[in-house]
Amino acid sequence: MEPVERVVRHFQEELEQLKTRLLEMGGMAEEEVRLAVKGLMDSDADLIDRVLIGDEPLNALHIEIDNRCFTLLALYQPMAADLRTIVAAVKINTDLERVGDLAVNIAEASRRYRTHPPVKKLIDIPRMATIAQTMLRDALDAFVRRDIELAQHVLNEDDQLDELKTQIFRELLTYMLQDPSTIEPALDLILISRHLERIGDHATNIAEDVIFIVSAKDVRHHSGESQ
Amino acid sequence: MEPVERVVRHFQEELEQLKTRLLEMGGMAEEEVRLAVKGLMDSDADLIDRVLIGDEPLNALHIEIDNRCFTLLALYQPMAADLRTIVAAVKINTDLERVGDLAVNIAEASRRYRTHPPVKKLIDIPRMATIAQTMLRDALDAFVRRDIELAQHVLNEDDQLDELKTQIFRELLTYMLQDPSTIEPALDLILISRHLERIGDHATNIAEDVIFIVSAKDVRHHSGESQ
Repeated sequence: MEPVERVVRHFQEELEQLKTRLLEMGGMAEEEVRLAVKGLMDSDADLIDRVLIGDEPLNALHIEIDNRCFTLLALYQPMAADLRTIVAAVKINTDLERVGDLAVNIAEASRRYRTHPPVKKLIDIPRMATIAQTMLRDALDAFVRRDIELAQHVLNEDDQLDELKTQIFRELLTYMLQDPSTIEPALDLILISRHLERIGDHATNIAEDVIFIVSAKDVRHHSGESQ
Repeated sequence: MEPVERVVRHFQEELEQLKTRLLEMGGMAEEEVRLAVKGLMDSDADLIDRVLIGDEPLNALHIEIDNRCFTLLALYQPMAADLRTIVAAVKINTDLERVGDLAVNIAEASRRYRTHPPVKKLIDIPRMATIAQTMLRDALDAFVRRDIELAQHVLNEDDQLDELKTQIFRELLTYMLQDPSTIEPALDLILISRHLERIGDHATNIAEDVIFIVSAKDVRHHSGESQ
């Protein structure tokens, strides 16, 4: 194998590893969200505590991925589509770290929520959680597979989250107006619905990055700059 | 001038322009926040509308800065501190765009708020706004001047925002419990205080990037890799 070929192959291997690590990070962030919402639904103090103290592995992986991106940029000086992929990875990494923070926020609100009698049977919040987690997974799959259609699908899902958030708000407002003792716990549910909406926003950011990478690649491809 | 020297000089000029544009972007985002909070304080529907429809210039600048970063990375393939500065610029650019989005969120909540009788005289919210705007300005100054002390100062300010947010929440909760007719407008004030807290979070992100750039530079400097 020629030296240049070897460098290219090594670069591609490193890039694949970067993507794998990002998927792992996404899986971890998604799992934290799942546990936080399960802690709320089951009123499980242990589970909630696990989320509250458990963001260290996610933070460590965040730093590792950031370093991988810088190493790739510095050692290989990639061009065009590869450059965009790596810069997108830096952004996606930041989005995933924030998702982890939001899982902690959900756990904090859930811890307060369970100190009051439950306001109502929760139906829309687990639904929001499922949508947000799916959006996150799809956005990362779209990144790894450079799948612009899947990325577009993620963007469309965001409306559903927005509608559910508004519905939750209206319903809880009715409870609060009828019975002031529900105000405090209802506020925590409203906050949780907004944290879930923001997780959807991060999935949307990732999907937009994917569209940017793939579209830019097409544009460049047409002007003859392959890569 | 030697060709290599000319390239280096051109790169430094482009880098300075990038920083100037980021400062402009920061100024615009800060101004949107100022106007949104002024719209709330003065119950000024025109001002609120201006923020609601006025995020186009900010979005255009966001795209321009992103393109500048990619061009710099692709054309000059910078190393070490310069590489970190440009990747940080990509992140900071994203943070500033989100600050613009949060100004719009504040304007939306303000528009709803003014359809009700005012809950109370607002004191802590403008205080939070002033702190958040100052943090943002200081974080960007710290970036441009590579001022690690100023960046550290920004990180310390975040506690103040957090305390004010908690204080606002507690006070408004009392109002809501005493008089259910305040629930809806009080919820909007709580949301606004959280939007302001998140603006502080974005300033914190920028300050952390500054510390990362400058510290990494020091580390590399010690290992003999200048630039």
